[in-house]
Amino acid sequence: MNTHPLDKALALAHSDLQVGLFTGATSPDYWNMVGPFGGTTAALMLQAVLRHPDLLGEPVALTVNFAAAVLEGAFEILAVPVRTNRSTQHWTVQMSQAGADGKTHVTTTATVVSALRRDTWGANDLPMPEAPPPTSVERISLGPARAQWIHQYEMRPMTGMLPPEWDGGGDASETRMWVRDAEPRTLDFAALAALSDSFFPRVWLRRARPVPIGTVSITTYFHAEGALLSEIGHGFLLARAVGQQFRNGYFDQAAQLWSESGALLATSNQIVYFKE
Amino acid sequence: MNTHPLDKALALAHSDLQVGLFTGATSPDYWNMVGPFGGTTAALMLQAVLRHPDLLGEPVALTVNFAAAVLEGAFEILAVPVRTNRSTQHWTVQMSQAGADGKTHVTTTATVVSALRRDTWGANDLPMPEAPPPTSVERISLGPARAQWIHQYEMRPMTGMLPPEWDGGGDASETRMWVRDAEPRTLDFAALAALSDSFFPRVWLRRARPVPIGTVSITTYFHAEGALLSEIGHGFLLARAVGQQFRNGYFDQAAQLWSESGALLATSNQIVYFKE
Repeated sequence: MNTHPLDKALALAHSDLQVGLFTGATSPDYWNMVGPFGGTTAALMLQAVLRHPDLLGEPVALTVNFAAAVLEGAFEILAVPVRTNRSTQHWTVQMSQAGADGKTHVTTTATVVSALRRDTWGANDLPMPEAPPPTSVERISLGPARAQWIHQYEMRPMTGMLPPEWDGGGDASETRMWVRDAEPRTLDFAALAALSDSFFPRVWLRRARPVPIGTVSITTYFHAEGALLSEIGHGFLLARAVGQQFRNGYFDQAAQLWSESGALLATSNQIVYFKE
Repeated sequence: MNTHPLDKALALAHSDLQVGLFTGATSPDYWNMVGPFGGTTAALMLQAVLRHPDLLGEPVALTVNFAAAVLEGAFEILAVPVRTNRSTQHWTVQMSQAGADGKTHVTTTATVVSALRRDTWGANDLPMPEAPPPTSVERISLGPARAQWIHQYEMRPMTGMLPPEWDGGGDASETRMWVRDAEPRTLDFAALAALSDSFFPRVWLRRARPVPIGTVSITTYFHAEGALLSEIGHGFLLARAVGQQFRNGYFDQAAQLWSESGALLATSNQIVYFKE
């Protein structure tokens, strides 16, 4: 049986040195232009918490800060439960790596909130946009040749893919697409964390101009329990993203992911550096 | 000259023990029902970074996790620049306090990204909603008697204040209001961080039912430079907030704050625990 590329990318070994310390390595399958796909890095930060023996409940919130480029090769992740309450738990997480200078550097920081969730009243006030059935929408496989991660997703965009020409003529930044892992895999929190970052940079669409960019921080809220994610299995998600403000080198992206049946699984926001 | 209540609340003393370690105390002026107003706590976490001698640039992103109740009295905040790049800097911040057991506990964690911003192309794709002039909207001073913080703000809501009756009959959670410090003070990043949390709990509006709540995590992106905030001075901000998903004990809130002339100054998201 083959291991799924995402499970390979998320493979972490417990270190003997300390509880909560894990070792892993970057995945060629999810390589981006000049480093790993940020979605996999975010998923790894969460995975260290999910693998921690003291975990309470399931993730509710994840913030990941991309402090420096992650280099190809080995890394360490340390997950620390800084506060455990009756039904919530607060985590700090750091990824570090040996740099070119031989010293260890922090490349990524994160915070996670996990919680025991209870049945309560509920309402979805952000309904899924109307969309044609997934299989009626054409699958694309675009993207720069070196961006391997794109090939790990089955993307069927209704609107807002890369502009047909880089002519500086863009006027909107919204994308709506059906998306799921290209190779079948049952949905879980780590996969959802990665999917929350599976959009092209909004500024490329908005300007029809491929300026250099880099996400500096992403925050994802999980609105579903693990059992619901399992039920969705390898189903499509409707993923929507839009940029709201572009100004002096930074823009934000607001994103939402629904199950095909309309359950809002995650809302995610990120802030992204852009040049020029 | 009187010190502004917010400046009193944000007063931090450098500790001799360590660079980046500050001491402060909770403010009676911003007391909430059972602890300090979360907006002031968020602002304090940011303030420790702003006061750090090694700060690079201005804040771009702030995530604050409310790990435990902050008790009345003294606290410590430690701000650490974990990574400094050419134009960005990544911070981790922790607030701790002596607990009832005499031991020191972490009450709050945060991450901050600061950056040197440059003039670039820009666009505001989230225009300010149409609204009547601030002074034509009636000022309110509602809220539970013990929630002192409410009195520190001049709030002029167009829509979505507390329901007239707690009759379980709500159907929407959007608030739009003009807001500014009640006592005049020039806008800055710390004030904006606090204002981003100046909304009543969405679930109270949505259900017309005052269930117990508590924010667990808030993330604010700053889309403006300090110079622009200074120019706004004591001007009104148009503040909008809406809940998107309420499910099994947690709901999110998406918020935006514009200057009166329509500049989008901050976008903010939070996830909030609710009971029942």
